[in-house]
Amino acid sequence: MQNTPYVLELADISLDRYHLNLNEVIFHNANGYIGIRYDFEEGYPEGYNFTPSQYINGLYDYADLPQAEKLFGLVNEKQTILNTANTQIIRIMFDDEEFSMFKGTVLSSNLRLDMERGITVRKVKWRSPQGKEMLLTVTRMASFYQLPLFTIEYEVEPLNFSARTVIDSVHDGTVCNYANPADPRLACECVQYLTPLGCEIKEATSYITSKTSKSNLEICSGVKNVLFQEYQQEFVIDNNDAHCRFHTYARQGEKIRLIKYAVFCDSIRHGNCRLQAEAEMERALSTPLETLYRKQTAYLEDYWNSCRVDIEGDPESNAALRYSMYQLLQSVGKDRFSNISPKGLSGDGYEGHFFWDSEMYIQPFFTITRPHISRTLIEYRYATLDMARENARILGHHSGSLYPWRTIMGRECSGYFPAGSAQYHINGDIAYAIIAYYLASKDLAFIKEMGAEIIFETARLWIDAGNFHDGKFHINEVTGPDEYTCLVNNNYYTNLLAQYHLNWAAKFYYLLKDSQMLLELEEKIGISEREIELFQKASTGMYLPYDEKLGINPQDDSFLQKKRWDIDSIPPHKFPLLLNYHPMHLYRHQICKQADTVMAHFLLEDAQSRETMLNSFKYYEKISTHDSSLSMCIFGIMAARLGMEEKAFAYFKNIIRVDLDDTLNNTVDGIHTANMAGSYMAVIYGFGGFRLKESGIFLAPLLPGDWSAYSFKISFEGSRIMVHVKESECKFVLEQGGAKDIHVYGDKYLLEDVLIVKRPK
Amino acid sequence: MQNTPYVLELADISLDRYHLNLNEVIFHNANGYIGIRYDFEEGYPEGYNFTPSQYINGLYDYADLPQAEKLFGLVNEKQTILNTANTQIIRIMFDDEEFSMFKGTVLSSNLRLDMERGITVRKVKWRSPQGKEMLLTVTRMASFYQLPLFTIEYEVEPLNFSARTVIDSVHDGTVCNYANPADPRLACECVQYLTPLGCEIKEATSYITSKTSKSNLEICSGVKNVLFQEYQQEFVIDNNDAHCRFHTYARQGEKIRLIKYAVFCDSIRHGNCRLQAEAEMERALSTPLETLYRKQTAYLEDYWNSCRVDIEGDPESNAALRYSMYQLLQSVGKDRFSNISPKGLSGDGYEGHFFWDSEMYIQPFFTITRPHISRTLIEYRYATLDMARENARILGHHSGSLYPWRTIMGRECSGYFPAGSAQYHINGDIAYAIIAYYLASKDLAFIKEMGAEIIFETARLWIDAGNFHDGKFHINEVTGPDEYTCLVNNNYYTNLLAQYHLNWAAKFYYLLKDSQMLLELEEKIGISEREIELFQKASTGMYLPYDEKLGINPQDDSFLQKKRWDIDSIPPHKFPLLLNYHPMHLYRHQICKQADTVMAHFLLEDAQSRETMLNSFKYYEKISTHDSSLSMCIFGIMAARLGMEEKAFAYFKNIIRVDLDDTLNNTVDGIHTANMAGSYMAVIYGFGGFRLKESGIFLAPLLPGDWSAYSFKISFEGSRIMVHVKESECKFVLEQGGAKDIHVYGDKYLLEDVLIVKRPK
Repeated sequence: MQNTPYVLELADISLDRYHLNLNEVIFHNANGYIGIRYDFEEGYPEGYNFTPSQYINGLYDYADLPQAEKLFGLVNEKQTILNTANTQIIRIMFDDEEFSMFKGTVLSSNLRLDMERGITVRKVKWRSPQGKEMLLTVTRMASFYQLPLFTIEYEVEPLNFSARTVIDSVHDGTVCNYANPADPRLACECVQYLTPLGCEIKEATSYITSKTSKSNLEICSGVKNVLFQEYQQEFVIDNNDAHCRFHTYARQGEKIRLIKYAVFCDSIRHGNCRLQAEAEMERALSTPLETLYRKQTAYLEDYWNSCRVDIEGDPESNAALRYSMYQLLQSVGKDRFSNISPKGLSGDGYEGHFFWDSEMYIQPFFTITRPHISRTLIEYRYATLDMARENARILGHHSGSLYPWRTIMGRECSGYFPAGSAQYHINGDIAYAIIAYYLASKDLAFIKEMGAEIIFETARLWIDAGNFHDGKFHINEVTGPDEYTCLVNNNYYTNLLAQYHLNWAAKFYYLLKDSQMLLELEEKIGISEREIELFQKASTGMYLPYDEKLGINPQDDSFLQKKRWDIDSIPPHKFPLLLNYHPMHLYRHQICKQADTVMAHFLLEDAQSRETMLNSFKYYEKISTHDSSLSMCIFGIMAARLGMEEKAFAYFKNIIRVDLDDTLNNTVDGIHTANMAGSYMAVIYGFGGFRLKESGIFLAPLLPGDWSAYSFKISFEGSRIMVHVKESECKFVLEQGGAKDIHVYGDKYLLEDVLIVKRPK
Repeated sequence: MQNTPYVLELADISLDRYHLNLNEVIFHNANGYIGIRYDFEEGYPEGYNFTPSQYINGLYDYADLPQAEKLFGLVNEKQTILNTANTQIIRIMFDDEEFSMFKGTVLSSNLRLDMERGITVRKVKWRSPQGKEMLLTVTRMASFYQLPLFTIEYEVEPLNFSARTVIDSVHDGTVCNYANPADPRLACECVQYLTPLGCEIKEATSYITSKTSKSNLEICSGVKNVLFQEYQQEFVIDNNDAHCRFHTYARQGEKIRLIKYAVFCDSIRHGNCRLQAEAEMERALSTPLETLYRKQTAYLEDYWNSCRVDIEGDPESNAALRYSMYQLLQSVGKDRFSNISPKGLSGDGYEGHFFWDSEMYIQPFFTITRPHISRTLIEYRYATLDMARENARILGHHSGSLYPWRTIMGRECSGYFPAGSAQYHINGDIAYAIIAYYLASKDLAFIKEMGAEIIFETARLWIDAGNFHDGKFHINEVTGPDEYTCLVNNNYYTNLLAQYHLNWAAKFYYLLKDSQMLLELEEKIGISEREIELFQKASTGMYLPYDEKLGINPQDDSFLQKKRWDIDSIPPHKFPLLLNYHPMHLYRHQICKQADTVMAHFLLEDAQSRETMLNSFKYYEKISTHDSSLSMCIFGIMAARLGMEEKAFAYFKNIIRVDLDDTLNNTVDGIHTANMAGSYMAVIYGFGGFRLKESGIFLAPLLPGDWSAYSFKISFEGSRIMVHVKESECKFVLEQGGAKDIHVYGDKYLLEDVLIVKRPK
């Protein structure tokens, strides 16, 4: 695999199953609304059981979630992402020879993802068994400009022959979700959630409208094939497969060019999705493809301009980080009906659910580069606030809202509540992300409109869930980020975030009150000064475990009394532990799946001394398995923060190519968006020492490994700052907006135009 | 319902569904091997969806136990009790009129359970729609003398007519388990586990052999009908229903008498169950029915003679307690292949699984009255020890054995491990019961043979599960008896029993060593003095939570820091809480389903001061819902122990008629055997103040409520002692065996023949 900053290229496309399966993910096209896994248009031979998948962000059906014991309030139904109509298939036949890379001879082949142009291009030079040689070029795009649109530009050049040619372009409405009975993280059975209601041909466009089995949603896909030469066209509809067949003639040396336009609309966003699909198709066809490509490039130019990171002296990491940032843009929801799932729109893994990954790993990237996307992510949470209220009632709370641990449309989908619904920190995570958005944007109008209601409602939950005991505020029976220790009392992470959250709830209350922006909310949810005082009392009295002897923050009340488990004593094949040990065994030991207390230290570094953070880092590092892909980036950032530069760099190197190298052996299920964003954070928050605080922005850049220099950009209160770090100095350039105070290595500077600060030796 | 000590009688049989459904349980016939619910031989009208059930103790099939998330080690398959071939059906037709209590006129009716004779008798005087009057008498018996045998003696006397008569006696091999989708404690779907392999008629006996669907077991039932008058007989086999039809003539004033013999054999106990069924049938037929009745009476005479309790001045309680004790005999397994389930053999509730109910509630009754039954119950645990070893490995333990929380054949069947497999106290419970059996019998040979291996193996588990912390031995992440608080650290009950268990493991080691009885076991499981020292160290160092301020034993490390929940604030319709609150909500509060610490105090009263027990009782009583039927008996016993006689009596009155009055609204699912045994304990351990300790037996009788006197019997080291308590004095009579020391009101006496001790004022 060749990898330059903006291009990922496979020089010879391997035809073994493993690599083809991986390519489905690595080269998928998405735009945050639709996601199309990369499959060969002409298909695969028998036995290659791939499931070409097309996803729509936020679209779901319900599936049963059987519980072994039917305890009150357990979740019995989950939402699941859907595979929608397949619009990828294009077969081409010259006389009686059908093109396939698995027949004849591939003379050369090449697959490229171009991240400046937002397209994938496959080129194949092929010789048929009978000796026909041709050159195929397929360009695929999920348009950022027109979100429902996916295009395939299909060009064939006959090199040494002319022949009668049939092109069969298929639009297949009968699709199943991917299944793998061997992997607990995936569905077991190949379920067909969508039932096609019919297939219609109108103006040579096929429209297939389908209905979900239980969620009562509809989706319509429209497909139009435009062939740029003489042909005879016929449509064959076979059991909700629409075949558009062109009978044409291929002439040696003349390119056959076909554009296949596919649009996807759904009833969540578009009401009558059938009509909307028609409108979208009209819109797509009214713009030349070249213009659509140009708009794609323009969109990406703006994107890279706002967030680009350049690393000098480490081209591998530089390219991988670029790839990660491209995937984040491909994955993130662009409206309030969706968010960003751990696998983006590249696979069924985790069933397309949204987790805390969004707020704690991915949103920070957007908050400091493209804050409007961050705001949209918060709008999604606001749109599901009522369901968070219901969820709190199910869990026995009289007031407040509790966001679900995993969900698509807002209702809880955790089957195993001790490592699911019990993760109350989700409330603190969402609050933290809203506060961060506010700190970066100072957008108080949005806080008034949506942010404050979420903050207040979720703050109420802490009051209802917790209780004072011996003068301190305790939060019992919750699970922190570390899923190897469940249902504990006073998880440090949870309590620290709850404290910060309650504190900010009070701040927002007075900020809005002072700006006469509180009235509506007072009326709507009855928030009052008396309640704010309760928030403050709980925040001030929050119990935060600290162990004098070790000088660390214990992960929870009883963590340190448990058995220690020497990681070195565990045979390598027993990792990840969750696949090899009973949960109770894990809970009984001092063993962590991922950063927990260490993550709290990263998020709120001023809440404890450097010494406590250092002691804690050392303590937890020894017992953390990093069985979650959310772990190493945080350890890396804290290693950098605490002066362990080499260690930080080692962590970074470990995570920067997780998907490109398939190091976790599960990239086929989808990319790891949180790890990708974590890699970004490892550079900006880790090596750059960036922090966003109430008192402003802070930087303390390191120059790790072999890097000769690196640069990144920060959006802050409407200004854009470019940070350029090299051996001797850091340069800060105000690219856009008004002057800003920035803190560098602990000193405050006013950045007006360019600022240069010497790097400490 | 009329209820004299030995007879339970319904004067007029109600025909409404509720009562008939209840009678299926209340009047069921069982002998510890088979259990037959009480159903009318002639059946019920359409719409009475009863499932006439015949159970075999310990016979099981496997059923899927789907887990919402497939975590490592979770149970995916459970065992379930089976409904076996129905041998109850007998229809009778006079000319064209078929007998049914739902047609014509019931002139009188009556249903009796005779607990001295071990039979149920139904008498019906009936007038047919056409005016035929007849008297029906049906006597049913599950033989204690021949366990596989169930008989129905069916007598009809035509009072005012003669007529051609057809008797259709059915043996139905196509049966399903009972299901109720509305109740989480029962199966949802009507599953047919048994597949009949065929039906065979041999010597006018029908044999149906069936195979379980997954557990690879077979069962054979044989049915023979004997009619004592002239007849023509035909057999009709219809899809594994064997109909034995008699064509005969009914003459006015002359009784028609039919005996229906049914035998049940299974491949667990009988190898070739088909051959064994034939042998059993031969054996049954070779004994006149009157002799079988006499043997039944003799068996029961011996039974009552060994355990009878007589209460004077409270006939209602007296009769109810007799009923309970009869049910315990009906329910308890008589061989090592079975135990005693919470519903006995009277219903499908809890799927026929065996729990700690056996050891902690039911076994004490047998230990002090019929110790050989107690020994058989331990033999069942011994027979499943290998599976307990496997279970420990699944849960991550390197050594030791952990008994399953619920099981039939020895493998864990808990679907929800926090309130299932996490109840490690099951190990301590089984150890406690073995120790109690030893204390009552001094049967060291049995300890050598089986008891010690269980004790050592389960003791090893404490060592593997626990760990030293700050110099004390901790047991983390387990669940105590109270299922409203799960996965806690240092549950007082668990730790106290573990301490006692480890301590006795050491005692048994040296007892056996000193008697040269250890060699085999040393070889088999490698137990050594070094390991015993570990046991002693953990026992001595066992951490036992105590709260200075409240002067109580906290239920676990963090129990007291949780929110208090005022029981009075909970609306009555919200009980039992488990059906109305999410588990996490329950766990977060100081609220108990049942006795936990209070139960530990009962079991090991010398481990803490009276003051601590009193403070604890008062503390926990306020927050205990008694949502489990295992709770009140323990609170009652401890109330008596702590001088709250009135309260103790109130608890007793609350539990003594749970099934007879269906106070929990679920007796249709089966009797509550643990509550029945708990009622017995409430008298002997509660009012009688009985305790069995290493230092001997202790008594401190009270005379509660309106009782003028009561008496009970205790078997101890081969002697039988009758205790008679009245207002002024307690009389102790040595009925059998050698002289014994007994402690009465704290003083030690030698009981040689009769001893009279004044009751304190």
